[in-house]
Amino acid sequence: MVDFSEILTDSGEWLKGTGPDADVVMSTRVRLARNIQGFPFHLKATPDSKRDLASIVRRKVESSKTLRGLRYVCLEGVEPVDRVVLVERHLISRELADGEGDRGVAIGRKETVSIMVNEEDHLRIQVLRSGFQPEEAAAEVESIERSLEGELPFSFHPKYGYLTACPTNVGTGMRVSAMLHIPALVLAKQVEKFFNALAQMRYAVRGLYGEGTQALGDFFQVSNQVTLGRSEAQIIDELQRVVPEIVKYERDMRQRLMAENRNELEDKIWRSFGLLRHARTLSSEEMLRLLSMVRLGLNLGTPEKPHSVIPGLSIKIVNDLFIATQPAHLQKEAQRPLKPEERDVVRAEVFRKRLARVTDAQ
Amino acid sequence: MVDFSEILTDSGEWLKGTGPDADVVMSTRVRLARNIQGFPFHLKATPDSKRDLASIVRRKVESSKTLRGLRYVCLEGVEPVDRVVLVERHLISRELADGEGDRGVAIGRKETVSIMVNEEDHLRIQVLRSGFQPEEAAAEVESIERSLEGELPFSFHPKYGYLTACPTNVGTGMRVSAMLHIPALVLAKQVEKFFNALAQMRYAVRGLYGEGTQALGDFFQVSNQVTLGRSEAQIIDELQRVVPEIVKYERDMRQRLMAENRNELEDKIWRSFGLLRHARTLSSEEMLRLLSMVRLGLNLGTPEKPHSVIPGLSIKIVNDLFIATQPAHLQKEAQRPLKPEERDVVRAEVFRKRLARVTDAQ
Repeated sequence: MVDFSEILTDSGEWLKGTGPDADVVMSTRVRLARNIQGFPFHLKATPDSKRDLASIVRRKVESSKTLRGLRYVCLEGVEPVDRVVLVERHLISRELADGEGDRGVAIGRKETVSIMVNEEDHLRIQVLRSGFQPEEAAAEVESIERSLEGELPFSFHPKYGYLTACPTNVGTGMRVSAMLHIPALVLAKQVEKFFNALAQMRYAVRGLYGEGTQALGDFFQVSNQVTLGRSEAQIIDELQRVVPEIVKYERDMRQRLMAENRNELEDKIWRSFGLLRHARTLSSEEMLRLLSMVRLGLNLGTPEKPHSVIPGLSIKIVNDLFIATQPAHLQKEAQRPLKPEERDVVRAEVFRKRLARVTDAQ
Repeated sequence: MVDFSEILTDSGEWLKGTGPDADVVMSTRVRLARNIQGFPFHLKATPDSKRDLASIVRRKVESSKTLRGLRYVCLEGVEPVDRVVLVERHLISRELADGEGDRGVAIGRKETVSIMVNEEDHLRIQVLRSGFQPEEAAAEVESIERSLEGELPFSFHPKYGYLTACPTNVGTGMRVSAMLHIPALVLAKQVEKFFNALAQMRYAVRGLYGEGTQALGDFFQVSNQVTLGRSEAQIIDELQRVVPEIVKYERDMRQRLMAENRNELEDKIWRSFGLLRHARTLSSEEMLRLLSMVRLGLNLGTPEKPHSVIPGLSIKIVNDLFIATQPAHLQKEAQRPLKPEERDVVRAEVFRKRLARVTDAQ
């Protein structure tokens, strides 16, 4: 059983705010969908087939030298609120949390790797990285895949590629996504044209908290939609042509803001910080709006010459706050169930605690 | 010559935030208008008569045992910005600052006493007190009057009383005012009915920064308009019946806010504090609005059981900030002339400096 207190204090390494282009790209995620020959697919799975599958995967994970850092968590034995904690930390999907029967997840020590078992597909292998690192993430996810593959022969069709429960994943079974923070493009009303172009290339744009959530404020998750008929390398390659262009425009707009409205911008950033630091109640919508301004304030330079308006505040603290202030994390903080308006109060408490020690730079 | 650096660091004792009813009444002011026999009144005064008068008063102040704490400042030798500093500290009137010819002011060490010379009247004797203390202030102003009276026979008419340049001051020549902070009455939209009642009793209601300024936000200066046909005791007595009633209603409304909207109120107070502490630019209007909420936060209890939402912040710091963030004070802080938008930036700097050390209480 996972020690949740540890999970709650150690944040995922993919949140540390380093990595290439971390000023604009919060994180990169690659996940593979795989199914194992000889086991019925999700909708036809029985309690027994699920249990057998889970125990095979668990044994494999726990005995593999290359996967030895992972800890396997059987989700049936985990409290609902703790399952949501795992969702909020991007380690499992909401479907897996809410699912039935034997299902689990193997989690890497730094929370950069997770392998979901008995989700929509038998296996969902995921790697998270700080900044924009699709190649590195893909390489790692494929190395994990190889470690599993030997004993677990994957369902594969010579023509279509890897078979998956949902046809949208057939082929490579790979989905790559980047979480973008583009406040300057939003301020300059330049977001829509990028999103139209992305939609034409069959990229999906979603909100900060993943599939099904609305894009809130200045945070957008961009991911490929098509996996059939393309190689892994093609998918990665395409993302590596699309995202850096957005990064460049966002940076240009930030520099323009600094050149044309520096005082107004800095005032807005510090006011956002002041509200987050002192408010007694914070809705998640307001929080995202304010936190976006504060995060922008830490990244107002260029890659060659970084510049932060709030030198006492680290990007890691800011990134952590996105995770730590979601509903289940707040319940863990308060150690009791919370109504929505109580959440807003505890959310403000978390901000006060974490921002209190930030020194007031002039 | 007055040492202005000292004046700028030591704030007037009437701002220390103590005294009866200081939760609602910031300060009480009593001033007497007096003219001296044998000297022409203001409009007919000559450069010579002004000089003679000023030197007589100055000699008297500097030789009197009871007035020995006062320092006489000849305003002709004072830079315009420093004269405005004296206006902003409520030590001289704007008319005296902008006037011509020999004129001056004798200032008490704690800035609770000032005697203006060659203003609209030959003498304007003023006492400022913290909280609501009209009797004490009147007693002190009259004792100063007696110290001066011996050598300086005042113009007095057996029927009308003391004669003054402006007929509205004839009689006692006494004006009493109280500076009220009534944010809860403003929030509850109960201000107008009080002001209508006050107007019927011929009280004037003005803004924070005195005659000619608009009432801004939650601060109002209430003063008697009629001096003819009433004794000093009657004027004081009337104010002592009017003001405590406003104080009582304001306190009741504060208690009601605490009972009905405590969380919302505390959130609003802390957000105001957060903005004042971190903003990079602050207009005087916004400052007054925010500072009013913060000052309310320090006075949410009853006289028997005081309660502050921001325990690390003293009422003295807050009261000082009203003075220290006016235009001339800001120019002294910046040590150069400031355009209005530059003022807003320096004003925010002053807030950051003075609030940075306030501990974040939970």
